[in-house]
Amino acid sequence: MTRQNLSETERAELIAVAHALADAARGATLAHFRQADLTADSKEDARFDPVTVADRASEAAMRAILAERRPQDGILGEEMGASAGSSGLTWVLDPIDGTRSYLCGTPTWGVLISVADAAGPVYGLIDQPYIGERFEGGFGRAAMQGPHWARPLRTRPARPLAECIIMTTFPEVGSAAEGEAFHRLAQQCRLTRYGTDCYAYALLAAGHIDLVVEAGLQAYDVQAPIAVIEAAGGVVTDWAGAPAHQGGRVLAASHAEVHQAAMVALRG
Amino acid sequence: MTRQNLSETERAELIAVAHALADAARGATLAHFRQADLTADSKEDARFDPVTVADRASEAAMRAILAERRPQDGILGEEMGASAGSSGLTWVLDPIDGTRSYLCGTPTWGVLISVADAAGPVYGLIDQPYIGERFEGGFGRAAMQGPHWARPLRTRPARPLAECIIMTTFPEVGSAAEGEAFHRLAQQCRLTRYGTDCYAYALLAAGHIDLVVEAGLQAYDVQAPIAVIEAAGGVVTDWAGAPAHQGGRVLAASHAEVHQAAMVALRG
Repeated sequence: MTRQNLSETERAELIAVAHALADAARGATLAHFRQADLTADSKEDARFDPVTVADRASEAAMRAILAERRPQDGILGEEMGASAGSSGLTWVLDPIDGTRSYLCGTPTWGVLISVADAAGPVYGLIDQPYIGERFEGGFGRAAMQGPHWARPLRTRPARPLAECIIMTTFPEVGSAAEGEAFHRLAQQCRLTRYGTDCYAYALLAAGHIDLVVEAGLQAYDVQAPIAVIEAAGGVVTDWAGAPAHQGGRVLAASHAEVHQAAMVALRG
Repeated sequence: MTRQNLSETERAELIAVAHALADAARGATLAHFRQADLTADSKEDARFDPVTVADRASEAAMRAILAERRPQDGILGEEMGASAGSSGLTWVLDPIDGTRSYLCGTPTWGVLISVADAAGPVYGLIDQPYIGERFEGGFGRAAMQGPHWARPLRTRPARPLAECIIMTTFPEVGSAAEGEAFHRLAQQCRLTRYGTDCYAYALLAAGHIDLVVEAGLQAYDVQAPIAVIEAAGGVVTDWAGAPAHQGGRVLAASHAEVHQAAMVALRG
C-alpha cells in the first residue's frame, strides 16, 4: 500500500473539488434541517438510525459533481455504496454524519468528505453547514473557517490523562466490553462529554479537547477525521494502535503521548 | 404570589434591556471562547465545574447595563449572587450555562437571561453567541433568530413516549435514584441524547424534541428556559408537577400529554 504521488496541480484540484462537494452538501442538508418536512426512515430495526431525505440528497449532490469533475475516481458513500475508479483515488463520503443529531436539531452533525489512496485518506474535510464551519486537513493544509474567524488547526500539547477532556457519542460506546474499556479510560480523564458526533473530531483537531474514542464506526465515518486530525498534529488509530481508516474501534488523540496512555487504559 | 401588571411600554422596555444584556454577553463570552487564554478554575472539589474569566466578564457586562437602565430591579446572578430591588422584578442571569461545553468548544452552552416577579419568570431569553442564535419567550412573544432564519417558536404536537426524543446533559443525571428514574423514562422513548446543556430547552421550544429532564438545577439554570418553553406552548415543572422556577428536578415537555406520561414514568 503505497502513497500516490500527486502534483501540486492535482492536489489543488482535489482540494477545490472537495470544497465544491461541501458547498453542495450545505445546500442539500440545510434545505431540510429543522424544517417541518423532516422525516426519518429506519434502516435497521434493532438500532434507531434515521435516514433522511436530506442524507440522500446530500450524497446525490456530491456524486453529481464528482461525475462531472472526477469521473476517473472511485466513490464510497454511506447512502449509495461503492463504485470503482481507474485513478487509484477514492472519494469517501458521509453525507450526514450524526443523523440522530440532525433529526434532533443539534448542530453537531456534519458532512464528511475525504480522498483516499490505497494506504488511506490523504485529504479530508469536516463541514458543519448550520453553524457555517469547515475544518480541513491534508496536502499541507490544516485549517478551519467559521462564523467568527479563520484559523490554522493545531492539536493540544501532551498532558496527563488526569487533565484530558474525552468525548464520545453514546455513553454505551459499543458492546458491553467496549463500554467497559471506554469508561475505564474516561474515569482517568478530567472531563467526559457525550453526544458530539463528528464534531468531536473537529474540536480535537482545533486543540480544544484531547481524546475521542468510539467503536463500531464505518470507513466513511472516520476517514475525513483522520486526515484532518493527522494534519493538525494528532494521532488516530484503532484501540490497539493499528490503522483505523477501515472503521471499527477508533482512538483519536491530540498527541502521541496521550494516545499511548489512552491505549494502556483501554487495554485494562 | 401574584403576577405583576406591566404596561405595554414597561414590557417593551424589559424586552429591549434583555436583548441589550444578551448582546453584551455575546461580546464578553466570544472574547474567550476557543481562545488560547481560556483557563478554568474549579469551584468545587468533588465535581468538576470550570468557572472561566468569561463567565465573570459576561455577568459583569450584564450587571453594568442593569445598573444604568434598571437600577430599581433585583438581580440574581450565577457568579455574583443576589441583590434586592424595589420594583418587584428580578433579573435572573446565567452568564454561561454549560461551562463544561464552553471549555470544550462545543456550541451548546448559552447565556440565560430572564425577568421574574414573585410568581416566577415572565420573560426569558436563551442566547448561543457562537452560532449567533437567540430564542425568546414571554410578553406575547415566542420567537428565534439564527444564522439562517428567524421564526416563531412552537413546541411539537403530543405523541406517545415511544415516539419522543428526550435530552439531558449528563447520563448519570443526578443521584443514583434520579438516574434510575430518568433511564426508566428514557427507555420508553424513541431516542435519548446527552451533552446538550441549555441548548436542549431551546430545541424543545423550537419543536425539534419532546422532553428535557434534569436534576440538581439552580433557579438561574431554569427560569429563562421556563419562560421560552411556556411561551412556545410547552410545560415545565419539577418531576412531580410542581413549579420548577426555584430549580431542582426539572421536567420540560412539548405538550401536557407528554408531560403527564413522563411524570408517570419518572415515578415508576
